Amino acid sequence: MHDIGFVRDLAFVMLVAGTTTVIFQRLRLPVLPGYILAGVLIGPHTPGVLVADPRTIGDISNLGVVLLMFTLGLEFSVRKLRQVGGALLLVTVVEVGFMLWLGYELGQLFGWSNRSALFLGAIMSLSSTMVATRTLTENGLRQWPFARLVVGMLVAEDMLTIVLLTLLTAVAIRGTVQTGTAFSLIGHLGLFVVAGMIVGLLLLPRLVDYIAHFDRDETLLVSVLGICFGASLLADRLGFSVALGAFLAGAVVAEARSAPRVIHLVEPLRDMFAALFFVAIGLKIDPVQLSHYALPAIFVALAVMIGKSVVCSVGMFFIGHDARTSLRTGLCMAQIGEFSFVIATLGLSLNAVDDFIYPIAVAAALICMLVSPYLLRSTDVIAGVGQRVLPTSFRLLMSSYSGWLENLRPVDENATLAAMFRRLLWHIAVNIALVVTLFVIGAYVNAHHADRFTQWGLDRDLRHSVIWACALFFSLPLLIAIYRKAEALGMLLAELGIRERFAGSYTQAIRQVLARLIPLATLLALAVLVSVLGSAILPPRGVAVFLVAVTVVLAVVLWRALVKVHARLQAALRETLEKPSSDGHESN
Amino acid sequence: MHDIGFVRDLAFVMLVAGTTTVIFQRLRLPVLPGYILAGVLIGPHTPGVLVADPRTIGDISNLGVVLLMFTLGLEFSVRKLRQVGGALLLVTVVEVGFMLWLGYELGQLFGWSNRSALFLGAIMSLSSTMVATRTLTENGLRQWPFARLVVGMLVAEDMLTIVLLTLLTAVAIRGTVQTGTAFSLIGHLGLFVVAGMIVGLLLLPRLVDYIAHFDRDETLLVSVLGICFGASLLADRLGFSVALGAFLAGAVVAEARSAPRVIHLVEPLRDMFAALFFVAIGLKIDPVQLSHYALPAIFVALAVMIGKSVVCSVGMFFIGHDARTSLRTGLCMAQIGEFSFVIATLGLSLNAVDDFIYPIAVAAALICMLVSPYLLRSTDVIAGVGQRVLPTSFRLLMSSYSGWLENLRPVDENATLAAMFRRLLWHIAVNIALVVTLFVIGAYVNAHHADRFTQWGLDRDLRHSVIWACALFFSLPLLIAIYRKAEALGMLLAELGIRERFAGSYTQAIRQVLARLIPLATLLALAVLVSVLGSAILPPRGVAVFLVAVTVVLAVVLWRALVKVHARLQAALRETLEKPSSDGHESN
Repeated sequence: MHDIGFVRDLAFVMLVAGTTTVIFQRLRLPVLPGYILAGVLIGPHTPGVLVADPRTIGDISNLGVVLLMFTLGLEFSVRKLRQVGGALLLVTVVEVGFMLWLGYELGQLFGWSNRSALFLGAIMSLSSTMVATRTLTENGLRQWPFARLVVGMLVAEDMLTIVLLTLLTAVAIRGTVQTGTAFSLIGHLGLFVVAGMIVGLLLLPRLVDYIAHFDRDETLLVSVLGICFGASLLADRLGFSVALGAFLAGAVVAEARSAPRVIHLVEPLRDMFAALFFVAIGLKIDPVQLSHYALPAIFVALAVMIGKSVVCSVGMFFIGHDARTSLRTGLCMAQIGEFSFVIATLGLSLNAVDDFIYPIAVAAALICMLVSPYLLRSTDVIAGVGQRVLPTSFRLLMSSYSGWLENLRPVDENATLAAMFRRLLWHIAVNIALVVTLFVIGAYVNAHHADRFTQWGLDRDLRHSVIWACALFFSLPLLIAIYRKAEALGMLLAELGIRERFAGSYTQAIRQVLARLIPLATLLALAVLVSVLGSAILPPRGVAVFLVAVTVVLAVVLWRALVKVHARLQAALRETLEKPSSDGHESN
Repeated sequence: MHDIGFVRDLAFVMLVAGTTTVIFQRLRLPVLPGYILAGVLIGPHTPGVLVADPRTIGDISNLGVVLLMFTLGLEFSVRKLRQVGGALLLVTVVEVGFMLWLGYELGQLFGWSNRSALFLGAIMSLSSTMVATRTLTENGLRQWPFARLVVGMLVAEDMLTIVLLTLLTAVAIRGTVQTGTAFSLIGHLGLFVVAGMIVGLLLLPRLVDYIAHFDRDETLLVSVLGICFGASLLADRLGFSVALGAFLAGAVVAEARSAPRVIHLVEPLRDMFAALFFVAIGLKIDPVQLSHYALPAIFVALAVMIGKSVVCSVGMFFIGHDARTSLRTGLCMAQIGEFSFVIATLGLSLNAVDDFIYPIAVAAALICMLVSPYLLRSTDVIAGVGQRVLPTSFRLLMSSYSGWLENLRPVDENATLAAMFRRLLWHIAVNIALVVTLFVIGAYVNAHHADRFTQWGLDRDLRHSVIWACALFFSLPLLIAIYRKAEALGMLLAELGIRERFAGSYTQAIRQVLARLIPLATLLALAVLVSVLGSAILPPRGVAVFLVAVTVVLAVVLWRALVKVHARLQAALRETLEKPSSDGHESN
């Protein structure tokens, strides 16, 4: 038929992938490295060229990344993201930072360019979600306590992946990145994530549940794919990666009541494209070249396995898990995988790194993937060796640290207060992020659609005034919410912070001052924030003062209505997040 | 990321498809024409080009055809194919033939070239499986008696589709086709189908069930896709269409015990690629061009709707269904769809037809698809009109025809004998087909791998002798089976055909002669068949006689062993086909 060549290539790849999966499954070997090896075997660099044009296959395998990130998002829903916990997040950040540094140093040691070394660091820093979850599932360890830690770290790493991808793109395009630019990038990213999540949570789960109502799998699947790819498109348009968009879309859709059905429908797609993705990686590899870079690849693999397992284990121990659980978590994280390929491909396609990075990354990942299952199975051996090697004094130190941590746990009453405290801070942060988003959107409109305003007969000042007023107006319910939460926070802090035994008879007075002070300070901070944010679109002073006055009047008059608007939005959000969990899916 | 353009285009198409499916579902309109319209809207011919390069999308949508045919095969398993029945097959052949002729005449009327007219006939001859089954499902009519007829006709048409695709490819490439070539093509096709089915049935269901044992969806899916695409590749290599390979693979895999699981896994893929397929059709359409050809398109659509519904209804009535059931079946078949696009694309890509065929085919199919659901709903109206319009004498004729048919039904005893008779004929036909296949393979090896034999030091005569001997040797169990079935057939025929009341006292003698005659005649026919088939590879006469003698001796000596070999093969086949049906899937 028409242009059969492409179907023929793809058919061949699918045939090989199918054979590989059966054989490797039969031999109880991990399947993912099998796909890569199969790709190398049938690739254009091996005698007996079987796949002539790996380009189109590469194109399609890119879809694999989008679908992979979408299903990742689906499995690690917003609720699960919130459960990760600060301590775990901290360990992950430290671990990824350490691996970045280690990779960079290793690259310098090899005598590579700065940028290549940085990319090596990124390649080494991210564990493979697919390999780790497979290892857990295949060894029947999903229900063990350490599995929860592994999944938590993987989720946190996925979030960091997105930060890394965005930063590396910037580095690759601009050459280097100043700290300021980096922070602004991270800021933009955070805004996009928070705003996208909140708007998404308000709209998408309802939409998906509505579509699921038709009770036709085809409609549900095609529209969910539309959402997934639409979000990718939006992210791409705003300068982020398609992977980020897909991941966010997945995390948001995961909150729909029909999420398990969606996962069920999307999984076959993911599996097919993941197989294509891994075979496509193999297609790009020249085995001769691979053998040239065997030595650095082995070094990188060793650094990954030792570095990751040690840092993760130590980190887990430090945040209070017992030694064996920590070791298991570390060993389970000790590999790199799909993200390393994504980063290496990114570097190559932007001409940011030397050509040899790609084969080294693939070879190192292959080694890690092959070794990974055996690493986890040898936990007991490693623990035994550790016990024999470590001096007694050190082990004593370890156990006393655990005991000390145990004592530190907050008592019940404080724990409740602390939880309230955290929740208030969280609400304030989210509302501030939304206000910032509104003003950034205003600035964007001002910068990119100025012509249209001119068409409408509005000059620069008038345009600024209109946009600024709109941003301020839409922020009103949010600003009021922030003020109210700050009030509550002040009262809570006064209660928590000023104990009678310290302040004596002044307690009440000091508490009252503190309770008033905090909302006032917040108000001031908000004013500064709004004027800084609005600096690009600030109207002439007179107009601004007038607008602020109007806003204040509006705020006072409409206080109740605005509180109600905000409460309704918040309730909708909470309803989505805190509905009775109907899932029980432990897919893949 | 790398080569984002493609992902961006695809993302856009998926987004549009998702939106379309929700909106059309909501408005209770058929979704498939919605996809096409959406494709037209975002295509490169509309102002505001949104999808820049529809080529890659077209490439991917070709995968849609493969997956579509595979799932069709999965749903219409070998067992269901056998249930279609001769009468239904006859009606389908007559209907498709009539529509081919009608389309050809219409093309001539428009003043088109012969080849374009022939393609128009093919475009008009095949109903859309997707539209028809959707219409049934959406109107809740799947359990009605006429639905079984519709599905039967669709299955029969799918088989004819493959014949048509192969023939049209030949026509398009060689310009015209002599009757001889056409028959040889159909012969080859039949051989491929029968041989592929039998070898496939012996191997694939067992393999799939073995893989399903691992209990991992990913492994099952990827390996089944490997089988599907592998079969497409094989069909393509042998000169047939990839669609045929995928269809056969599906029909064979459908006999696996785990077929329902496979269907479940493959369906999301089919849905995604089907959406892409239909949007891609729209992408190729220029709306301006469409309006140019509005008139012929309307003619074609009318011809399809009237022609198909009338021929199918009349045919159904003739084979003994009541008037209303026949009418419903006809109205449900009265549309064209996906195969028309496949055929139009085939014609275009082989430069066999004029450019305007494609827009006309798409427009006509669009009209049919949009009208189709309403057509079925208006059965009662049409039946009422018919009753008023038709003269009483005609209606009397119809009812007396039904009564006469009723009387013709075989009585019970004869029905059993007739079933035995059919089964024997069927067995003989299959075994003959296998023998023919063996000799064709021999001829193929002789023609294409002669060099290798020369390398081994075998000259032409010796090569012929070896190949011929091998083919004969492998045919032995089949030949013996044919002989034994022929014997049984002879006895049955003698019993059935020679009744005592006609032949009187000679009955026994005549019966014995007949019972001997038939196997002898078969033996003779086999000898002729083998020598004709082997003509390309016939060894020198002396060698041939010697080989035949050896074969006869072998046959006599090994008779029991060979019967056992054949029985074991047949048992394996029967076990696959007649296992307790564990499915209950009424998917899509």
